[in-house]
Amino acid sequence: MKILIPDTIALHLQGDADAVVYDVTAEIPPEHRDAEVLVTWHNSREQLESAARSLPGLRLVQSLASGADVVLAAGFDQTVPVCSGRSLHDGPVAEHALALILSGIRRLDRLHDAQQQNRWDEDFIAAQSAPETQGLYTLAGSRVAIWGFGSIASRLAPMLQLLGADVRGIARSAGSRSGVEVVAEADAAGVLAETDVLVSLIPATPATADLFDRTVFGMLKPGAVFVNVGRGATVDEDALLDALASGGLRAAAIDVMKKEPLGADSPLWAAPNLVITPHVAGNRPVGGSELIDANVARLAAGEELVNQVRP
Amino acid sequence: MKILIPDTIALHLQGDADAVVYDVTAEIPPEHRDAEVLVTWHNSREQLESAARSLPGLRLVQSLASGADVVLAAGFDQTVPVCSGRSLHDGPVAEHALALILSGIRRLDRLHDAQQQNRWDEDFIAAQSAPETQGLYTLAGSRVAIWGFGSIASRLAPMLQLLGADVRGIARSAGSRSGVEVVAEADAAGVLAETDVLVSLIPATPATADLFDRTVFGMLKPGAVFVNVGRGATVDEDALLDALASGGLRAAAIDVMKKEPLGADSPLWAAPNLVITPHVAGNRPVGGSELIDANVARLAAGEELVNQVRP
Repeated sequence: MKILIPDTIALHLQGDADAVVYDVTAEIPPEHRDAEVLVTWHNSREQLESAARSLPGLRLVQSLASGADVVLAAGFDQTVPVCSGRSLHDGPVAEHALALILSGIRRLDRLHDAQQQNRWDEDFIAAQSAPETQGLYTLAGSRVAIWGFGSIASRLAPMLQLLGADVRGIARSAGSRSGVEVVAEADAAGVLAETDVLVSLIPATPATADLFDRTVFGMLKPGAVFVNVGRGATVDEDALLDALASGGLRAAAIDVMKKEPLGADSPLWAAPNLVITPHVAGNRPVGGSELIDANVARLAAGEELVNQVRP
Repeated sequence: MKILIPDTIALHLQGDADAVVYDVTAEIPPEHRDAEVLVTWHNSREQLESAARSLPGLRLVQSLASGADVVLAAGFDQTVPVCSGRSLHDGPVAEHALALILSGIRRLDRLHDAQQQNRWDEDFIAAQSAPETQGLYTLAGSRVAIWGFGSIASRLAPMLQLLGADVRGIARSAGSRSGVEVVAEADAAGVLAETDVLVSLIPATPATADLFDRTVFGMLKPGAVFVNVGRGATVDEDALLDALASGGLRAAAIDVMKKEPLGADSPLWAAPNLVITPHVAGNRPVGGSELIDANVARLAAGEELVNQVRP
């Protein structure tokens, strides 16, 4: 079985598969258009659209990204199974989320600005220890809400709890997961009103488009911190800018945006108290080779695939 | 028992104590010079020296700072017990250390620089996901050494372990503490050679002056990250600058310096890949009210005091 492997990551497949490394920025060479498996990582939309037209024997598209939305939009035949690399990013994304939360709470961005001015930030020092800011500069005793409570949240929540945070989840259905109380989205308002830090881990779907809008930011406890390591399509960016400008949000940190790469003319870059990282939370799949091996073996055996998102 | 409470922090004492809030920048008012307990937080040296002369019935000075050195130097009668707020800072300092470690690993400083230039940092994205940098941009699988293994390290180590780091300690005496293998300082070289992230939590003493010098930085695995939330006196800052300039250290983050506030003309501000925060790791005692309650009760009962540093 010929497997096309992207040149953007080191993979070491087992078994007797015929693995061919291809250039993710170019058309698939004619001699490899008989491939049955296409693995994707950091492919451009154009390259994927080209691949969708040129691989007639394709039996599996295995993305290493946590969301397969780019692959799903590329025009592959609807009958070809598409699998995501969802589970490969749980650890890295949870780590980046924690980094952004701590940066937002400890205001490393503001302190970095002061550093660039050779300035010892006495105003920050005074604000951090002032009686009226108790709880604002630490996760100890803070209330963190994680919207989208799947496998990444299950990694992140215990870290936040070790730091002393009171963690709750918001998801489509209520329940207790990994020892955390999760409320249904319909009941989010009550949680948001008490939330100091809101973390989004939700994927981009038609139902989640612009979920984080003026209404949701307005429900949040005034002065909350917002962190997005889910997908940019879920945020109304004008509403985010307004919430930061008004102080409704004290700070925010986003790893994802509606349009990536973010254009140089975007007003997001210079928004007050906003940290932007260039979609690097899960920029290093962990366990990719093993996932490909597993799905190739399952495909050959006619078994159910791991992380299948279509059909 | 009249207790003088500083106006620099919100405290809520229990029991029937007569708590009076005072201005830490002014002399104690004449009507409160009968106080038996003085609690201090962010008091000026002048104010403490004045208080030392004007409170004849004093039976306890309770500092909320981790070190009581400023109180000890203020001239209080040598027979009056002085207690520090040492334990109140373990959680906040561990949290700041984690924030600096994650910032150093995830290079939030570099990404913030790119943000200020409205620039999507493609070079960073490529480096982070390049096959040859596996392990450099994540704590998963990295080796972290904590030098100075007391109560703060015991809070920090489990957080690093949850992120997938292999944690070891370096301290005056070897042993296993909080489930972490701690080696003696004499055997540090072997640990340092394998260390990806070195975290210092050690205090300033004559024995630790300039401990982190060219020799120690030279023992570290090339390309390691250094984080200091201990005391600035422990670092040879010229050696730190050279290690950063040469790339011996990939990055560093320091919350403490030899001279604080750091002067505007310090070469540290603009050192490459160095993050500076203005001694804010433990700038907010947690549990101060409970410590005061406990020591007031012990004082009344004639019992041993918590965190007593004199006499």
